[in-house]
Amino acid sequence: MNIAILGVGTVGSSVIKILQKNKDLISARAGKEIIPVVGTVRDLNKDRGVNIPLTDDIKSVLNRDDIDIYIELMGGVEKPFSIVSEILKKKKPVVTANKAMLAYHRYALQNLAKDTPFGFEASVAGGIPIIKALREGLSANRVEKIVGILNGTSNYILTDMMQNNSNFEDVLKKAQSLGYAEADPTFDVDGIDAAHKLLILSSIAYGVHGDPEDILVKGIRKISNEDIFFAKEFDYTIKLLGISKITDGKAELRVHPALINKDRIIAEVDGVMNAVSINCDALNESMYYGPGAGGDATASAVIADLIDIAKGNKNPMLGYAQNFKKMELIEQKNIQTKYYLRVKVEDRTGVLASITNVMSQNNISIDSFLQKPRNKGEKHTTLYFTTHLSLEANIKRVMGILENFEFVLNRPFMIRIEE
Amino acid sequence: MNIAILGVGTVGSSVIKILQKNKDLISARAGKEIIPVVGTVRDLNKDRGVNIPLTDDIKSVLNRDDIDIYIELMGGVEKPFSIVSEILKKKKPVVTANKAMLAYHRYALQNLAKDTPFGFEASVAGGIPIIKALREGLSANRVEKIVGILNGTSNYILTDMMQNNSNFEDVLKKAQSLGYAEADPTFDVDGIDAAHKLLILSSIAYGVHGDPEDILVKGIRKISNEDIFFAKEFDYTIKLLGISKITDGKAELRVHPALINKDRIIAEVDGVMNAVSINCDALNESMYYGPGAGGDATASAVIADLIDIAKGNKNPMLGYAQNFKKMELIEQKNIQTKYYLRVKVEDRTGVLASITNVMSQNNISIDSFLQKPRNKGEKHTTLYFTTHLSLEANIKRVMGILENFEFVLNRPFMIRIEE
Repeated sequence: MNIAILGVGTVGSSVIKILQKNKDLISARAGKEIIPVVGTVRDLNKDRGVNIPLTDDIKSVLNRDDIDIYIELMGGVEKPFSIVSEILKKKKPVVTANKAMLAYHRYALQNLAKDTPFGFEASVAGGIPIIKALREGLSANRVEKIVGILNGTSNYILTDMMQNNSNFEDVLKKAQSLGYAEADPTFDVDGIDAAHKLLILSSIAYGVHGDPEDILVKGIRKISNEDIFFAKEFDYTIKLLGISKITDGKAELRVHPALINKDRIIAEVDGVMNAVSINCDALNESMYYGPGAGGDATASAVIADLIDIAKGNKNPMLGYAQNFKKMELIEQKNIQTKYYLRVKVEDRTGVLASITNVMSQNNISIDSFLQKPRNKGEKHTTLYFTTHLSLEANIKRVMGILENFEFVLNRPFMIRIEE
Repeated sequence: MNIAILGVGTVGSSVIKILQKNKDLISARAGKEIIPVVGTVRDLNKDRGVNIPLTDDIKSVLNRDDIDIYIELMGGVEKPFSIVSEILKKKKPVVTANKAMLAYHRYALQNLAKDTPFGFEASVAGGIPIIKALREGLSANRVEKIVGILNGTSNYILTDMMQNNSNFEDVLKKAQSLGYAEADPTFDVDGIDAAHKLLILSSIAYGVHGDPEDILVKGIRKISNEDIFFAKEFDYTIKLLGISKITDGKAELRVHPALINKDRIIAEVDGVMNAVSINCDALNESMYYGPGAGGDATASAVIADLIDIAKGNKNPMLGYAQNFKKMELIEQKNIQTKYYLRVKVEDRTGVLASITNVMSQNNISIDSFLQKPRNKGEKHTTLYFTTHLSLEANIKRVMGILENFEFVLNRPFMIRIEE
């Protein structure tokens, strides 16, 4: 089987190297040899350390008729979508790691890939075979809930903050110098990357309508040492979670930092590792853990897809051989969780009463409260609240009101609690 | 697709109920309806709570030509092997949860199932799709090591012993009353069940020769509160592990209780849950966690196999479409690990010197040593050692010598340390 790789970067180079290094094993498993015959790059002058022909002329590769499977590793959304569509229209199988393209065009791609194999295991949680587990391994089940640590960069930063009481900006710089974060970290630390992955998983789990912009997405930039202090004090850890579940017949999807009890197994997932916990009706909870990124890990998933295709396996792209009703997304204001609230205030009489009044008037019921003794000479203090289950709309309203009190010194900060 | 279930017990009833309850979803995923049309039982008078025809005449079911897939849930080894062989010879697909049959006859079954789908996801770790992950998800990789908590009963008992300082016999009784342990718990607590599963996983990972009797298997019956005390003191937990790895070009398989550092993620797997950690060359470590037993969890895996077969997927039974060289097992005496040794002795001059002399003469190097102050009035004390990497043959020899010293009061007890 001849393979063309569109976009030979870190992952593409790993694909080529592993196909060559593990050729005996991969051939035995696939039943035939899988041979990378050509790769495309933008800059032919840059050394990729691979020993196959490279070209900067994608068209010439798309027009070859000796290619059995195309691997798309170019990145972006619309350009790869157009190229992948063109390939699928010719009934040629495609394997991709492109989560952004899938988050926007997953159903269009599903239609195009009706009779053509389309692999995307590498798009979520790197090398962990989570697409396969969810789409095939759990196929007897109604999925009820997915909770994932889906972004290694954010998890690396939060782990360091928890373990070393370091602050966000410093750890981000460290992550960048170690290659764990991009020069522009927006996609990773603002939750966008995780949102793409959550949409993909949810579409397999129960089919959801909606684009990444439609779901609640918050990043980790504003988490401070005070939040870390509180988390430790109350036996929580802080993780950037992707959460997807069924609420009143609708799909509730959200990506945000969350306080989770530190004795949950997903709380132990540290550094750049990813993990996805899935609750189903028959199986209950299962969890999948492994590296979320890296050339070799991602290539491992790409090649698993190639082997599946070589064996002639026919898995409908999103897991449904026949049409199945898709879920609507729940409106964000109707989401209910527990909340942690941090409010910096002037330390004087009546402040706590004013705040708790506002909360009670807006149906926010306090579960716990912490105020540390003031440091000598300081005139302000920080109040920490956790709430019982509350409506997103109500907590937002409360935060707006608090912000306008003259004794509230900063914008109040909130983290959702996931139990 | 018409399904016959040979042996309708707990798992079989769950299969029928889930197929009926999730019919819409399962049909959409499989592309066709999967209908349980008949089940066999030994005793027709016992109510199974299922609404399909049951018979005690297996022959009549095997002779029907309207059955598309047979599910074997009878248990045992030779009888189901003979029946499954008969079905496979007729080129009818089989799905089984029978790990004992697979542990003894996996390669014979592989030969019989060359052109016929044969699913056995349910045979290892209940509902966790670990066969699929290892056989398909990690197919690009050379597997280097598998470490699994593969028996929920033993894990339940050890978890209780660690958490409550309870003793083996009491927790076993509790587990039996809760339905977590059988009246005869031998298979579970003596490591035999885990050994069957470890052989199955290893055969997929790299193909191993050998029967369950050929591998090192130790159970958990002799673990005492003193061992629990030591584990806690040195930040270990005790788990019954199945370990499989490549050592000098041979396969090293062993099942035994092990001391593992309590901050490892697999150390957090408590109660009846299972987990399998897999190290590979491209992906490094990934881990799979979930319920190891139970009717619905196991049925979830059985039905996933049915859906795969309905979709026309063609996965070679043990993952190899072409022949691939199998590994020989390493001789047990050549296995190297670190060890923990507990020796009860008379508390008098020269005892420690004698023991450490024997150890050094047999190339056992001590890593740590603990002796607690003797309780008032007692004339004996317990010595706790851990060793550096040592040969199994040497530690066995040392234990034999120690046992014969007149100042050694009990048979010394050893637990392997897994780092």
